[in-house]
Amino acid sequence: MSHNIIIAQSGGPTAVINSSVYGAVKEALNNKYIEHVYAGINGIQGILNENIFDFKYETEENIELLKNTPASILGSCRYHLRDYKEDDEDYIKIFNIFKKYNIKCFIYIGGNDSMDTVKKLSEYGKHINSSVCIMGTPKTIDNDLFGIDHCPGFGSAAKYIATSVMELAQDANVYDNNIITIVEVMGRNAGWLAAASAIARLGNSEAPDLIYLPEVEFSFEKFEKDVRSIYCKKGKVFIVVSEGIKTSDGNYVSNFTDNNNVDSFGHSQLGGVANVLRNFLSTRVEKRIKTIEFGILQRCASHCASQTDINEAVLVGREAVKYALNGKSGYMVSLKRISNNPYKCEIELVDIKKVANYEKKIPLEWINEERNFVTKEYLQYTLPLIQGEFKNCSNNGLPMYSQLNKITIREKV
Amino acid sequence: MSHNIIIAQSGGPTAVINSSVYGAVKEALNNKYIEHVYAGINGIQGILNENIFDFKYETEENIELLKNTPASILGSCRYHLRDYKEDDEDYIKIFNIFKKYNIKCFIYIGGNDSMDTVKKLSEYGKHINSSVCIMGTPKTIDNDLFGIDHCPGFGSAAKYIATSVMELAQDANVYDNNIITIVEVMGRNAGWLAAASAIARLGNSEAPDLIYLPEVEFSFEKFEKDVRSIYCKKGKVFIVVSEGIKTSDGNYVSNFTDNNNVDSFGHSQLGGVANVLRNFLSTRVEKRIKTIEFGILQRCASHCASQTDINEAVLVGREAVKYALNGKSGYMVSLKRISNNPYKCEIELVDIKKVANYEKKIPLEWINEERNFVTKEYLQYTLPLIQGEFKNCSNNGLPMYSQLNKITIREKV
Repeated sequence: MSHNIIIAQSGGPTAVINSSVYGAVKEALNNKYIEHVYAGINGIQGILNENIFDFKYETEENIELLKNTPASILGSCRYHLRDYKEDDEDYIKIFNIFKKYNIKCFIYIGGNDSMDTVKKLSEYGKHINSSVCIMGTPKTIDNDLFGIDHCPGFGSAAKYIATSVMELAQDANVYDNNIITIVEVMGRNAGWLAAASAIARLGNSEAPDLIYLPEVEFSFEKFEKDVRSIYCKKGKVFIVVSEGIKTSDGNYVSNFTDNNNVDSFGHSQLGGVANVLRNFLSTRVEKRIKTIEFGILQRCASHCASQTDINEAVLVGREAVKYALNGKSGYMVSLKRISNNPYKCEIELVDIKKVANYEKKIPLEWINEERNFVTKEYLQYTLPLIQGEFKNCSNNGLPMYSQLNKITIREKV
Repeated sequence: MSHNIIIAQSGGPTAVINSSVYGAVKEALNNKYIEHVYAGINGIQGILNENIFDFKYETEENIELLKNTPASILGSCRYHLRDYKEDDEDYIKIFNIFKKYNIKCFIYIGGNDSMDTVKKLSEYGKHINSSVCIMGTPKTIDNDLFGIDHCPGFGSAAKYIATSVMELAQDANVYDNNIITIVEVMGRNAGWLAAASAIARLGNSEAPDLIYLPEVEFSFEKFEKDVRSIYCKKGKVFIVVSEGIKTSDGNYVSNFTDNNNVDSFGHSQLGGVANVLRNFLSTRVEKRIKTIEFGILQRCASHCASQTDINEAVLVGREAVKYALNGKSGYMVSLKRISNNPYKCEIELVDIKKVANYEKKIPLEWINEERNFVTKEYLQYTLPLIQGEFKNCSNNGLPMYSQLNKITIREKV
């Protein structure tokens, strides 16, 4: 008897999250025991609402183009399942839908919260003796997922950040007057992305000079000293900062304004940490300050994706299906680095209980003594992940994206 | 007797301004009558200060890499020459330096202000019967230069903006809740760059929905009506706006804040027009609003350069040297579009007096009746300019840039 499979995505998008959909869909379509490859639209919410479509009715071209289509093509959600012991309503609904559609495997592609969903559903499945295999497939630009060497999505975001910082550094050198550049990078609790800017230095870039990460306490006094020291030498300072840096009392620097801070330095309530630091420096070191926020661009810039990252994203999607069809459930498909030179990763399964709800930060040994840059260990770790330029499918000078029809089962009926 | 040539850059950088340096340097090095190919560091200021280096001492590789190195490699300045009839001190100095270094041609690569410098120097040259030929080579991402079909630098910036807007549009569709996205694009008086976002729609992108340009008066009432109309239909609105839009009384929208506006809608003094519009919409239409400012990225993103743009930038650099060596002076090397399908441009010379100090705006016929988008005429004009992806020279997953030694003549002595 044939079985079906269902795939969904959750959490914030990445440039390569759809590469994992590609890997999973291709693997499932090639399996003779699988008849329907379903997708839930907008994550677990789409499954709950039977908002489901069948990849059978999508073209080969649109499936191929998934590899280069940024931002969760299946839609996303931030839906938190309650503990089934307290409230099993959602669980009953989901497993009834699994039954209704003869689902053998559920593949959930996402980050921390999504792995929590995988954990809860697989535990409930065990509890009711369900045969549905539930597997997590990792993605996050933040690279803060536990139990994996590095997370698909991070390499492409790192490549975009390093490349853009190289370009901005070129731009900052154009005029001979003094200038401070402050670049704000995503990362609420982990600084992997901001640190990736350091790779620009391997490309013979002078920038960045200083990097501030959420892993270490931020001190305004030390910051001023750091900036002043470089400013006196070069007249130009290039700073990269994680959005989530905090002072020793645990306050986000981005929240420092005139109103809530005794050391009142902000002129006005500007959004973001870069603007807070601009206000701070402008009266102390130099008025000419440029701020740049990569914002959403860093999580969707598929035109600057890393081929290594795409390959690995495809791989974890494919392997999730393979393992689920072999009866594995309650695991995340993980990458284990076997060697760094030549770079090689192997697939391993990690118990989902060891993944969900933990956050991986940059080891403190990978941050320099001055706490304002990363060490060569960080660079050795990250550099292999940005290798390879993806050859865009392009049309009319623009990238081509997958245009799935997503005709839901209900619409079909 | 052999002659020498000097090249300099001025104004804001672009992704391909160094491609014009490449074209000029290669042409000059290949000319048997030219012995030294000098460059002034930081524009006309570098020439005034004899801050000059010789391309003879640069490697072939570094000259080749100029084609893919963003941001004025020779440095820039914003130095304004006074009218020589009022004060000829700078002129005397510059022409003495031309004499001292046996300069036959001076090639100045830049935008509006730089063409003003070319005009003044060539007029003074005529006045003193100098034989130095002075030629302007156009560049600007803003595309507001007069006397040319389109300006080198614009195509690459347009490609970056259209590509990034496609990516951001994918990202905005990920969640099923309502959201407004506002993207702020450079362009103080001309909306060519903001309008380039419309090209994303040719790539099957739903976005942008609305584009606001400095060419037309901005009305907050009309804006609210436009946004509300799309919001009611789709729940998502994607807006692109030029930094330089103004209301009917001539005030920049970016200056509207609590303090200086009777219709007080701003919550706080945020920088930029996107933030002003966010504040305006957040109390009227929808609270969930994301703003993105491309900022400096749009003028230096050589990793997303248009091959057509690079080729044309090389061409105008090369032709400037050719014409100057043939005795032409006081002209800008211009591009004239011969046909659009197939796309073809020819070189023509434009009298520098017809170029300097004018600004080219988008023709009003290319803006729709509702004044919130561009017509197909704009798209037909811009689309050929973004064609072709530049194959990056890359090393370690990062772009490779030219690393000129720039050993100045004084240092050499």
